[in-house]
Amino acid sequence: MELIAVPLAFPSDCNVVVGQSHFIKTVEDIAEIVLTTVPQAKFGLAFCEASGPCLVRTEGNDAELVAAATAQARAVGAGHAFFLVLRGAYPINVLPAIKQCQEVCRVFCATANPVQVLVAGVEQGRGIVGVVDGSPPKGVEGDAEKAARRELLRKIGYKR
Amino acid sequence: MELIAVPLAFPSDCNVVVGQSHFIKTVEDIAEIVLTTVPQAKFGLAFCEASGPCLVRTEGNDAELVAAATAQARAVGAGHAFFLVLRGAYPINVLPAIKQCQEVCRVFCATANPVQVLVAGVEQGRGIVGVVDGSPPKGVEGDAEKAARRELLRKIGYKR
Amino acid sequence: MELIAVPLAFPSDCNVVVGQSHFIKTVEDIAEIVLTTVPQAKFGLAFCEASGPCLVRTEGNDAELVAAATAQARAVGAGHAFFLVLRGAYPINVLPAIKQCQEVCRVFCATANPVQVLVAGVEQGRGIVGVVDGSPPKGVEGDAEKAARRELLRKIGYKR
Amino acid sequence: MELIAVPLAFPSDCNVVVGQSHFIKTVEDIAEIVLTTVPQAKFGLAFCEASGPCLVRTEGNDAELVAAATAQARAVGAGHAFFLVLRGAYPINVLPAIKQCQEVCRVFCATANPVQVLVAGVEQGRGIVGVVDGSPPKGVEGDAEKAARRELLRKIGYKR
Amino acid sequence: MELIAVPLAFPSDCNVVVGQSHFIKTVEDIAEIVLTTVPQAKFGLAFCEASGPCLVRTEGNDAELVAAATAQARAVGAGHAFFLVLRGAYPINVLPAIKQCQEVCRVFCATANPVQVLVAGVEQGRGIVGVVDGSPPKGVEGDAEKAARRELLRKIGYKR
Amino acid sequence: MELIAVPLAFPSDCNVVVGQSHFIKTVEDIAEIVLTTVPQAKFGLAFCEASGPCLVRTEGNDAELVAAATAQARAVGAGHAFFLVLRGAYPINVLPAIKQCQEVCRVFCATANPVQVLVAGVEQGRGIVGVVDGSPPKGVEGDAEKAARRELLRKIGYKR
Repeated sequence: MELIAVPLAFPSDCNVVVGQSHFIKTVEDIAEIVLTTVPQAKFGLAFCEASGPCLVRTEGNDAELVAAATAQARAVGAGHAFFLVLRGAYPINVLPAIKQCQEVCRVFCATANPVQVLVAGVEQGRGIVGVVDGSPPKGVEGDAEKAARRELLRKIGYKR
Repeated sequence: MELIAVPLAFPSDCNVVVGQSHFIKTVEDIAEIVLTTVPQAKFGLAFCEASGPCLVRTEGNDAELVAAATAQARAVGAGHAFFLVLRGAYPINVLPAIKQCQEVCRVFCATANPVQVLVAGVEQGRGIVGVVDGSPPKGVEGDAEKAARRELLRKIGYKR
Repeated sequence: MELIAVPLAFPSDCNVVVGQSHFIKTVEDIAEIVLTTVPQAKFGLAFCEASGPCLVRTEGNDAELVAAATAQARAVGAGHAFFLVLRGAYPINVLPAIKQCQEVCRVFCATANPVQVLVAGVEQGRGIVGVVDGSPPKGVEGDAEKAARRELLRKIGYKR
Repeated sequence: MELIAVPLAFPSDCNVVVGQSHFIKTVEDIAEIVLTTVPQAKFGLAFCEASGPCLVRTEGNDAELVAAATAQARAVGAGHAFFLVLRGAYPINVLPAIKQCQEVCRVFCATANPVQVLVAGVEQGRGIVGVVDGSPPKGVEGDAEKAARRELLRKIGYKR
Repeated sequence: MELIAVPLAFPSDCNVVVGQSHFIKTVEDIAEIVLTTVPQAKFGLAFCEASGPCLVRTEGNDAELVAAATAQARAVGAGHAFFLVLRGAYPINVLPAIKQCQEVCRVFCATANPVQVLVAGVEQGRGIVGVVDGSPPKGVEGDAEKAARRELLRKIGYKR
Repeated sequence: MELIAVPLAFPSDCNVVVGQSHFIKTVEDIAEIVLTTVPQAKFGLAFCEASGPCLVRTEGNDAELVAAATAQARAVGAGHAFFLVLRGAYPINVLPAIKQCQEVCRVFCATANPVQVLVAGVEQGRGIVGVVDGSPPKGVEGDAEKAARRELLRKIGYKR
């Protein structure tokens, strides 16, 4: 079994959501989720069809982001994986609906950090085994950092 | 750490759903989900109890499919993993309820493709690290394939 | 790529839930989930912030359990991973709400068993690739064990 | 304010689901829910558009059931109400997805019983205020009826 | 159409949840929800079967609370209505799971206040048209009351 | 029992969502739902506290919309009812999360139409019994209107 780390390339003002689904309906459903949840969002979406023609299936409303998602799908090359690149929306806006999407199995990560997808390869094909999402912790928050964290969430309106 | 790929055997007219849960209630709950969602479905279900007697716990309404799920559970041998083999129903029929099942942690895959479960072994036991679900992508869809994909979903009634 | 198994230390009367989320709001949200679902629960929670200050962010209402969750987060060191240590409540009490929490991506495991988190390391950082949750199966239940399993769930009131 | 009771007519081997939604997307979404959850189901669906052309919007895969749902919608005449008539599927198969459908507000009833929709009329239009679903209780179950109830649910496979 | 207001009697240290469901499986499912979400809770549950024997179906783990729920069901007498009386748990602990319970249509109210159920009667039977839940508002909060409200939620740990 | 129809006043570029909840946490939770789902939205929110001080509790980020929601709450005056007035977002953006909000019982309507809330009054207080949402149907769609409906949903991007 070969194990490799595939860095995902995406514009710095975007977030990515990477997941596992189970058939081509995924691309239409996640596209509808983005558009009905955050109408202003720009996005690209790519899904690795894993039987028959085995094509990367794509949707989106922004050519650059569709190209980014497609490149991620091709670089990872794992059956039934999907890649969503979002601009003008945050993962929390759409994650609840993506997780409930009927054919989505799981979501590996949702992040604006540098991310490397850990991929295992065998003769049959490839599977995602994990993600390295951003940097490892450097320490534990103290009282001052705890207060700053709480204040930040309230300043941006996410918590009351 | 040993890494192996375990192919799942199941009848060609079936789908499998593989997941991680957290205790024996899983087998009754997922059995009820299948039967109350698609009454006509045939299924076999196996769950790897991971403490005490450490038995593969099974439910189902079709002996062949229970045997298939049990064989998958034994071959993978990862604590708290479950294996559902479905005939006469599709994963999208039952995935929403399985994901919401109170003791289910995550779903690794849902597929009718050839699937290999990637398993890591240490002295204590085993854990699923990923799945190879079907084949890797061979290319990217063009306009014709995109149109055919959309048409297919509408022909089978899944999208309007 | 380095692969290691990190055992999680936690008190024997506790359960742990390990997951992947996507930003610091996680610690407040999961704390609220625990407190509004099982008011009597004691818990510690730690989340690996993966950008900026990269601190382990913590919440909880029991110093010992916060310390346990924090130690788990530091030992695993994977960006955006979270660790919940629960006493006086069971994972099934809170898992449905945790899975629906808007920024939670996935849950790796929920267990009172000995658990080892399988971690992959690359230059950028670390990612969880799986868990070894308890022990591997020793056999398959027969009719007597099946009856005992069903009876147990009814005795504790989980199934009617 | 006028209060009337509108009996719903539907074939005796069908169930009805009556709800409140908020725009025309409802008919496509609930049609997709039925077809992706219980592929064998036959159904008719009608939704009372409440602005602009104010038409009863319909979908379905069985002309008789579409006609039944349409007649219900016309008889009740309440803005944004929907009426689903199902054959070959039970409400429990589809209710979870209907309740989660993004534009559905609430479900009034799901039943195979005789049902009367209670409707209030004012100058502007009409609103559903309740349903009379079947017959009122005649007594309280005793031990024998309790045992028979539990046995029935297990005989049909809904509970283990 | 007759309209009456039926006051619900229940112990002062309890909460009630009143809803509409669609068949007898409700009593087992909601009982399991309470017991698997808040293990310490005491409860009584009654459901108005609306066809066949038309019995009030009951479950619970406290005779006084089962009697209270049964009396509510008999006093209201509306087909497919259910009544849950809870002690040692709060509605927010169980409401998410009750709303997701596959056969539950809707929840009318969840409250510890004095509550009157508004019931419409026609020849066929009865239907719940609404609830009067507690007292009407006496004014609008000012800055001081707003601050006190926020502080209270944080003092009891429901909000951070 | 007194029955009245209370028209809701709100700006013509807004939508309203009216529901039943069960305590004051509602105003903070729904405010957070709006802000974390559609960051650009402007909103006002009012909830009728139904015990103790019995104040209309309010949140929001736009004074005009808070005033509109507050006026709706005062005009309806039903215990535990809430009123959300939204600008720059549509109900489908936030309805899924509002329905899942742990203390929300039900949603009566979500609409940009003229709406009248049907209210029943007894000595104790008031309860919402229904809504008149927009206008009653004038006819049934034919093939041309059906095609136009489908095209509209695709033109605005809501359906593929």
